[in-house]
Amino acid sequence: MIVSEGFKLPKGFMAAGVHAGIKKYKKDMALVYSPSACASASTYTTNKVKAAPVIYDMSIKDLPKHGIIANSGNANAVTGAKGLEDASMMAFETAGYLKARKEDFFVCSTGVIGVHLDMDKIKYGIKELVKNLSESDASAKDASEAILTTDTVRKECSVTVRIDDKDVIVSGFAKGSGMIHPNMATMLCFVTTDCAISHEMLQHILGDTVEDTFNMISVDGDTSTNDTCLVLANGQAGNKEIIAEGEAYDIFKEALSHVLGRLACMIAKDGEGAGRFIEVKVEGAASVKDARLLARSVVSSNLVKAAFFGSDANWGRILCAMGYSGASFTPEKVKLLFSSEKGSVVVLEDGEPIRFDEAKAKAILLEPSVSVLAVLSDGQAKATAWGCDLTYDYVRINGDYRS
Amino acid sequence: MIVSEGFKLPKGFMAAGVHAGIKKYKKDMALVYSPSACASASTYTTNKVKAAPVIYDMSIKDLPKHGIIANSGNANAVTGAKGLEDASMMAFETAGYLKARKEDFFVCSTGVIGVHLDMDKIKYGIKELVKNLSESDASAKDASEAILTTDTVRKECSVTVRIDDKDVIVSGFAKGSGMIHPNMATMLCFVTTDCAISHEMLQHILGDTVEDTFNMISVDGDTSTNDTCLVLANGQAGNKEIIAEGEAYDIFKEALSHVLGRLACMIAKDGEGAGRFIEVKVEGAASVKDARLLARSVVSSNLVKAAFFGSDANWGRILCAMGYSGASFTPEKVKLLFSSEKGSVVVLEDGEPIRFDEAKAKAILLEPSVSVLAVLSDGQAKATAWGCDLTYDYVRINGDYRS
Repeated sequence: MIVSEGFKLPKGFMAAGVHAGIKKYKKDMALVYSPSACASASTYTTNKVKAAPVIYDMSIKDLPKHGIIANSGNANAVTGAKGLEDASMMAFETAGYLKARKEDFFVCSTGVIGVHLDMDKIKYGIKELVKNLSESDASAKDASEAILTTDTVRKECSVTVRIDDKDVIVSGFAKGSGMIHPNMATMLCFVTTDCAISHEMLQHILGDTVEDTFNMISVDGDTSTNDTCLVLANGQAGNKEIIAEGEAYDIFKEALSHVLGRLACMIAKDGEGAGRFIEVKVEGAASVKDARLLARSVVSSNLVKAAFFGSDANWGRILCAMGYSGASFTPEKVKLLFSSEKGSVVVLEDGEPIRFDEAKAKAILLEPSVSVLAVLSDGQAKATAWGCDLTYDYVRINGDYRS
Repeated sequence: MIVSEGFKLPKGFMAAGVHAGIKKYKKDMALVYSPSACASASTYTTNKVKAAPVIYDMSIKDLPKHGIIANSGNANAVTGAKGLEDASMMAFETAGYLKARKEDFFVCSTGVIGVHLDMDKIKYGIKELVKNLSESDASAKDASEAILTTDTVRKECSVTVRIDDKDVIVSGFAKGSGMIHPNMATMLCFVTTDCAISHEMLQHILGDTVEDTFNMISVDGDTSTNDTCLVLANGQAGNKEIIAEGEAYDIFKEALSHVLGRLACMIAKDGEGAGRFIEVKVEGAASVKDARLLARSVVSSNLVKAAFFGSDANWGRILCAMGYSGASFTPEKVKLLFSSEKGSVVVLEDGEPIRFDEAKAKAILLEPSVSVLAVLSDGQAKATAWGCDLTYDYVRINGDYRS
């Protein structure tokens, strides 16, 4: 597997990103397009309050696709019947220029909620996007940039794998962590691949992979109204279509898993106000479900997050967060370690605190990226979750008045 | 029902609070005692990691009781087999002085975790407590003070009701919100009453009442290892023992509910770092379970809490937190109002944002105590939850190093 950090368009894909005027100065509309039809897979927010584009996408999700039309600056959420019409119109307008049908395009929005889209700007943007479509790396970068809201960096990852002696590219870009945007923005992730794979297999792989990647990051536990992850596969790599589990399936799954994992970590690292990246690993759990519950509970705890802000080796809060996770485990057998580039330190063994070098622990926890490992004695299952610390800046940014 | 804010001992109860040296300067041990045996009821933390005194109390909870022995400054949590021996020894020592059996006393601890109790100090404290036992209001105040950790005020409430033409006193004191103490302390609540009531009825009432009071407050969503709520009823008021539902049952339940509700609100208001008290009411829900889920989800959301810190009428975050609560409701029919002493403002009607006076909303939300009302169209059920905003001080206090 060859990994490149930038966003490289797979064979047969085009992209564009433009400024349509929804935001004041920055790029705010993106288009991803494949002239040949794509198998697709998608996952959506579990929030009962779903934005209009999410409702639209869910209604057309199983049909072949030619692309994604997206805007930032306005989430088209809590916008009633007009919001649904606007989402549908975005697809319709895009399809019109590209001689396709409305249902060939996914629609995504992110930004402020409760405000109707300015459809004149949207229509202008779509026209410009179509004009600017190209296979160049620069266009890919423009699209990736155009979906950002409060993100401080673009989030992109591409990998190349060999399937049936063909180069297959899996390439994704994302925005986040919208969960902490003052106006409740969103996590969006768009993956394109030239792999030939059936809709059913792609959806199956995405469902599995999201569980271990995007569903394992937490900035503040709030799930947005717009969260969406889309994958388009146009089959242009020329491999034999993947229609069942097997070697090709496994190779592709590993590639997608790597891309989503990298993007998820980038989102956690770029959590607004975040000063420190936190990784929580759980090993020896009775089941994968227990391992995930435990890792997520620790990385989501305000008390744990605040302790990491203070570089405090506070094993008590970690054990406590494990205790209320709902997972089954034996507290009397837990071993806990902190680690970073400065080394590692064991702080709990057999469920009881042990003496450790506080100065060393502090040095470890002062690093920008720290790791917690909980070793259990309940089985063989493991899981990893990612997040960030709780900082003054988090409170400042999210306490700011909407205007 | 006559309500008095102070803590008044019901007939036949004695109390004491002393400084045993577990903390440097402040009172750190409390004893509540009734020479006549009490029916008791209790609820405990659902955290899988339970402190030694919690494990001890759960093992003797259904037996008649004579009192409660408690300490602050050390939670006796994550202390292994010695911790369990120490908890048991606290009851044994207390019983020895009072010619009772070990199992006649509940044991509670709160404070730092992972450190064994200094049993010499504990034994000295018990001796002093027994010496100081009295029925005076001053002793009651001493006991109430001795269980505090980072609390800034004592939390006490007494009510008097008439049952069978007798005055019945229900009187409680509490500490909290330990959930945000740097070393993961605890919510403790001790209620005494001279009502004559069976163990079964008392436990039944407590279970119901806790659901609508202590289980509806949230400071940061972290559930402690030591949370405990105890009720002792010694029957000295002279009413006919309550052994079934009926008028007396209802009167007593209302009294207990009032005391626990007041104490829960005091804990939410005194949440460390809290600048603003938040009440979230849900009406028109399909079921009480849904109403509770919705109210709790809103009051627990970091984004909602940060918005209240900024006095931001951010209805989007509230609707979003309702959306991911897991409760069933119709988002398209939600009405949302903010209110405080400065008036009230409707911000959402039929699930869509409506124009409101931003200056008026800001004035309402700048008050120290603010209320959110969500009116649903799904049924008749309602619930209320209480919490506080998320502030710089919360992060500062909880980011501080343990030492």
